[in-house]
Amino acid sequence: MREFDLLKIVEEFFGNEEVEVPAGKHDAAYLRIGKKLIVVSCDTVNEKSDFPPFMLPEEMGHMAVAVTLSDLAACGAKPLYFLSSISMKTADDEFFRKLLIGMRGLASRYGVKVVGGDIDFSSTLTIVGFAVGEAERIVTRAGAKPGENVYVTNPTGKAELCLEMLKRGLKRDELPYAESLYTPEPRINEGMRIAEYAGAMTDISDSLAISAHLIARSSGVRIVFDSLPLQHLEGHTENPLEVALYGGGDFELLFTAKNSGDGIKIGRVERGEGVYVKVNSELEEVEFRGYSHF
Amino acid sequence: MREFDLLKIVEEFFGNEEVEVPAGKHDAAYLRIGKKLIVVSCDTVNEKSDFPPFMLPEEMGHMAVAVTLSDLAACGAKPLYFLSSISMKTADDEFFRKLLIGMRGLASRYGVKVVGGDIDFSSTLTIVGFAVGEAERIVTRAGAKPGENVYVTNPTGKAELCLEMLKRGLKRDELPYAESLYTPEPRINEGMRIAEYAGAMTDISDSLAISAHLIARSSGVRIVFDSLPLQHLEGHTENPLEVALYGGGDFELLFTAKNSGDGIKIGRVERGEGVYVKVNSELEEVEFRGYSHF
Repeated sequence: MREFDLLKIVEEFFGNEEVEVPAGKHDAAYLRIGKKLIVVSCDTVNEKSDFPPFMLPEEMGHMAVAVTLSDLAACGAKPLYFLSSISMKTADDEFFRKLLIGMRGLASRYGVKVVGGDIDFSSTLTIVGFAVGEAERIVTRAGAKPGENVYVTNPTGKAELCLEMLKRGLKRDELPYAESLYTPEPRINEGMRIAEYAGAMTDISDSLAISAHLIARSSGVRIVFDSLPLQHLEGHTENPLEVALYGGGDFELLFTAKNSGDGIKIGRVERGEGVYVKVNSELEEVEFRGYSHF
Repeated sequence: MREFDLLKIVEEFFGNEEVEVPAGKHDAAYLRIGKKLIVVSCDTVNEKSDFPPFMLPEEMGHMAVAVTLSDLAACGAKPLYFLSSISMKTADDEFFRKLLIGMRGLASRYGVKVVGGDIDFSSTLTIVGFAVGEAERIVTRAGAKPGENVYVTNPTGKAELCLEMLKRGLKRDELPYAESLYTPEPRINEGMRIAEYAGAMTDISDSLAISAHLIARSSGVRIVFDSLPLQHLEGHTENPLEVALYGGGDFELLFTAKNSGDGIKIGRVERGEGVYVKVNSELEEVEFRGYSHF
């Protein structure tokens, strides 16, 4: 995970800026502007790492907005504004229009205003999204407490499963969860509700395993998955547990709480460190890995 | 200017969002957050289009911050927060550290907090900067009025001249204005002062010619350059006027006002349309062109 090595350097440089929650500590930064608690984040997608085969340009635009709004969802923030930097390979009007249709579709669904952007040219189609939102309270990866349960908004691994099936030669219309891969939904409404009571929360950017490790480390606790849902993957792949734990492309929220009416209970928070999963009544260690670039 | 064709499409899609000043109307968007007038902008640099030969990694980091803060300067905004998306070619720690040193150096000089970012990998080193600032009043390209004068914070064309000289085989230490090319300064302090009284203002992202055309179009006026400074270019290039008008890489502010103690008076605002320059007592039309990628 090369990205995480570089993120450590970012934290070394900028981890102590005097804001509510600075760089590297969470999915997004929390700031105060006047009396408002404001959340800002940026996220990047590019065609080589993030766009699966057969993806339509509208879906690329959707994806760029989804990854950025998902960071805000992890703060329980209501997204307000979106900007983007689009690095195009050529000045293809028709393609560009379709990208914007996808961006507008998702942004408008959540009342997000697209207020600016920048266009550049590059050999790799790359879209960087930047979002500004407003939160009611600060929720980060650091608030998990022993005795809480661990929840996820929906079963994980659907996007990774589809990607695996494409690699095995299946066609897009044969995929069981194509929408999870091509038009993932940021969990904005869920995040706003969950932030009212969650101990810790993060979105699943790379894999369930990595998100759980980030919560465990930041909170100084151990996480044990004792009831990970795998039924949705069974029959489609040889190793459902691998896909659910280490697959990329999920846009779900992972959070801890005493009790929750949102999402699915998949484990518990304990004293200690690390992340474990119960397999046939035995605890196995969960590795810090996930999301391999295509 | 392929970028401007695509920007028209952006305005068609998002030019009517209900904010103070939306996408495409100015260098940055103006929003209200609580009682504050907030300015947000993003800008992109990549090694193929924006980094001149012999540029050091620290200077690349500086440049990424400078281009984004320059958009805020064009609003007379005080920059508060900066985020970036860095697309690296490889996970080169040493190079990455130097980039961040350059970013931190410029950001800290203006008290800008670096609060977040995102790291990605791509075949082209690309840095997208996002900045959030606070403005006292709204100044855009649209407020120029006949009878005002036209000013620029400093003579233009220095960066372009240096680039031309590098192409002619000169070395970096032989350049007369190397700092304009390698470590351009966003005119933050000047912008904050000028915004108090300017009719229209913009930064020079592409060329003096393009910035003047944007003000002329947005304001519905004609701009005449009658006293463009060229002495700083003379003796270094065959066509100083070409370099001053159409060269890229300037980070100056172009603005209109009745009178100004900031910057250099280079022309006047008249009724009509278009941009003209006085050459040997004759008016010549200034074209809409500039900044050719390297």
